Amino acid sequence: MEPLSSLEELTQALRCLPSVGPKAAQRMALHLLQHDRDGAQRLALALEAATRTIRHCQRCNTFTEDELCTLCRSAKRDATLLCVVETPADLMMVEHTQAYAGLYFVLMGRLSPLDGIGPREIRLDRLLKRAQDGVVREVVLATNFTNEGEATAHYIAELLAARKLKVTRLARGVPVGGELEYVDSGTLAQAMRERRLLAN
Amino acid sequence: MEPLSSLEELTQALRCLPSVGPKAAQRMALHLLQHDRDGAQRLALALEAATRTIRHCQRCNTFTEDELCTLCRSAKRDATLLCVVETPADLMMVEHTQAYAGLYFVLMGRLSPLDGIGPREIRLDRLLKRAQDGVVREVVLATNFTNEGEATAHYIAELLAARKLKVTRLARGVPVGGELEYVDSGTLAQAMRERRLLAN
Repeated sequence: MEPLSSLEELTQALRCLPSVGPKAAQRMALHLLQHDRDGAQRLALALEAATRTIRHCQRCNTFTEDELCTLCRSAKRDATLLCVVETPADLMMVEHTQAYAGLYFVLMGRLSPLDGIGPREIRLDRLLKRAQDGVVREVVLATNFTNEGEATAHYIAELLAARKLKVTRLARGVPVGGELEYVDSGTLAQAMRERRLLAN
Repeated sequence: MEPLSSLEELTQALRCLPSVGPKAAQRMALHLLQHDRDGAQRLALALEAATRTIRHCQRCNTFTEDELCTLCRSAKRDATLLCVVETPADLMMVEHTQAYAGLYFVLMGRLSPLDGIGPREIRLDRLLKRAQDGVVREVVLATNFTNEGEATAHYIAELLAARKLKVTRLARGVPVGGELEYVDSGTLAQAMRERRLLAN
């Protein structure tokens, strides 16, 4: 077999990006060569640097270039609160709300028995150790509201409850600005069951 | 201002890819770090190699790593036919049909006066020189059927006609497998005007 040309190799290599098929990869490769070679070189350096320097925070498991991430090192965060999320992207979403001032633990996944991902694969032992540091008072479960995220939250809740820790879960319900007509009925049913008392 | 972290720099650098916004760039960066560091390293090398080695074919202007591209070097192609396309992606599409055995000229663009792209910017002088090599008998214009592609085809057709060269254009009409009900009326009108004689 002939070795791949540089263009074919670049097109193939671009397929490592999520949701980039053969057609999109080809379009990207040609775009870079024709219009943005500087951008391509910058991207090559950034990929090399990121894969070389980025590792997991020893404390919260998110991505960082240091032993501990910026959040875990910060003295301004409330160390009695620990928010459990599935991924660093979820952590960034929660941070973006500016509604939370505690610390995080990033699972880097979720329980998914069908894919062979159990408590050991997402290192729940590390979460248990982290939550029992004597400072954490409340663990906020912020895994996704998918089947797998919910199962993960339930599983963690039982583990932590057995260790006498306060465990909470993000509220479910109608989205802010949402119109009942367009909310799916599962969400609406849940919002009805978990309705809040306003006056009595 | 603080320098960008490796993760931020990678996210920024991914924005050089076409139709990748801040959200998609972040998703790509996190995906690579979490699931495919080998792929990221391969991509870094491929980008570096491609930007270093890929240049334009001296004869047809497409991308190649050599002085002349594989097609221009091939003895099997019909050198009396020259097909003019806008981009290397278009060249690949025409090759893919296996309905054409001649050579190509890649404009690497199209006339677009509003964007300041005139005959000089797409180097039409090189096309004229190429088409007048004494071997080319017919120039097939395969620019896009957009306004700019059509204008480019017309402009080139006049230049070449003045030099006594045979010039043709890809046929327009109803797509193969197309149903009249779903064809846009402009295409249908064109197909009517350019109807072919089947029997007389």
